Amino acid sequence: MNYCSQCGAKVGLGTPPGDHFPRHICNVCGTIHYENPKMVVGTIPEWGNRILLCRRAIEPRYGFWTLPAGFMENSETTLQAAARETAEEAHARVEILTLYALYNVPHISQVHMFFRGRMLDESFMPGQESLEVALFSEEEIPWEELAFLSVRNTLEHYFEDRRQGAFGLHVGDIAPPREAPEKNTLA
Amino acid sequence: MNYCSQCGAKVGLGTPPGDHFPRHICNVCGTIHYENPKMVVGTIPEWGNRILLCRRAIEPRYGFWTLPAGFMENSETTLQAAARETAEEAHARVEILTLYALYNVPHISQVHMFFRGRMLDESFMPGQESLEVALFSEEEIPWEELAFLSVRNTLEHYFEDRRQGAFGLHVGDIAPPREAPEKNTLA
Repeated sequence: MNYCSQCGAKVGLGTPPGDHFPRHICNVCGTIHYENPKMVVGTIPEWGNRILLCRRAIEPRYGFWTLPAGFMENSETTLQAAARETAEEAHARVEILTLYALYNVPHISQVHMFFRGRMLDESFMPGQESLEVALFSEEEIPWEELAFLSVRNTLEHYFEDRRQGAFGLHVGDIAPPREAPEKNTLA
Repeated sequence: MNYCSQCGAKVGLGTPPGDHFPRHICNVCGTIHYENPKMVVGTIPEWGNRILLCRRAIEPRYGFWTLPAGFMENSETTLQAAARETAEEAHARVEILTLYALYNVPHISQVHMFFRGRMLDESFMPGQESLEVALFSEEEIPWEELAFLSVRNTLEHYFEDRRQGAFGLHVGDIAPPREAPEKNTLA
């Protein structure tokens, strides 16, 4: 951030009185520009014993498989965001069930949330951010081609819980990749 | 938003190709400025059968009681944010237990999350955003002087669950106040 989005003047870095973190502050109008983590919200769309995955048509992780999810927008709820992303990326309609997984991804200041979602019918097709969309049984999940660790962890817990017959809430952290990102490194 | 925080030029409103929402876009450098909901994260600090509340020394809701909570910061996890806010507002140290409540507050583009937290000792005192901090049994909760509906709902569920002997996860929405905010209206 270089300029004040309010008045257009230069901003500097400083810690406001009573605050504990450095902020971008306008040198002219004094506006404090807070930056906060973003939520990425999606679903685990269930159809019988299979779940719906999308193959990404966008970076990052172009070509890899993911649960339908995306950035939550202003003025919506997490459930609305999850259902909207499922509609946009997979043209699937879901009834949102419970919050199933919450992963903190602090190195990129994100929180990922996945809700279980019951598909209302078997219709789906790729949205513009997906190359393809398909239903997978547990045995068919492309574990080596999943886009994100939060998706992998969510799916691992999901199938384990399903075997146990009880779906709990899973909260965890995603650490940064240990080495420079490669084509096959989950980020 | 009037000016581009990257280059300082004027921004306009437009919907980028492939997007579904209007964004502020720089007329000169083309930067798209996304705005997303913010997370407010806190704890229900438990000490025996009492819980710790803070009386707010800041607006909004100056003088009203709340659970310790505040805006999540970049580069931290939800659990770290919850513990940090509890330390800042109440000088209390907690071991974070489970995520207990998530409330969507779409009319102000916020998501409120409260974790159960076990206080590590009985020491606490007001931080600079609190007028006072005190432990309350269920019978002592100042229900008419609570700052926010998300706090009220969380506490109602909490004591109900405790009577039942099982703490579940509570997810809900907070509607906007029906009338103009008054001194005693929960927002």
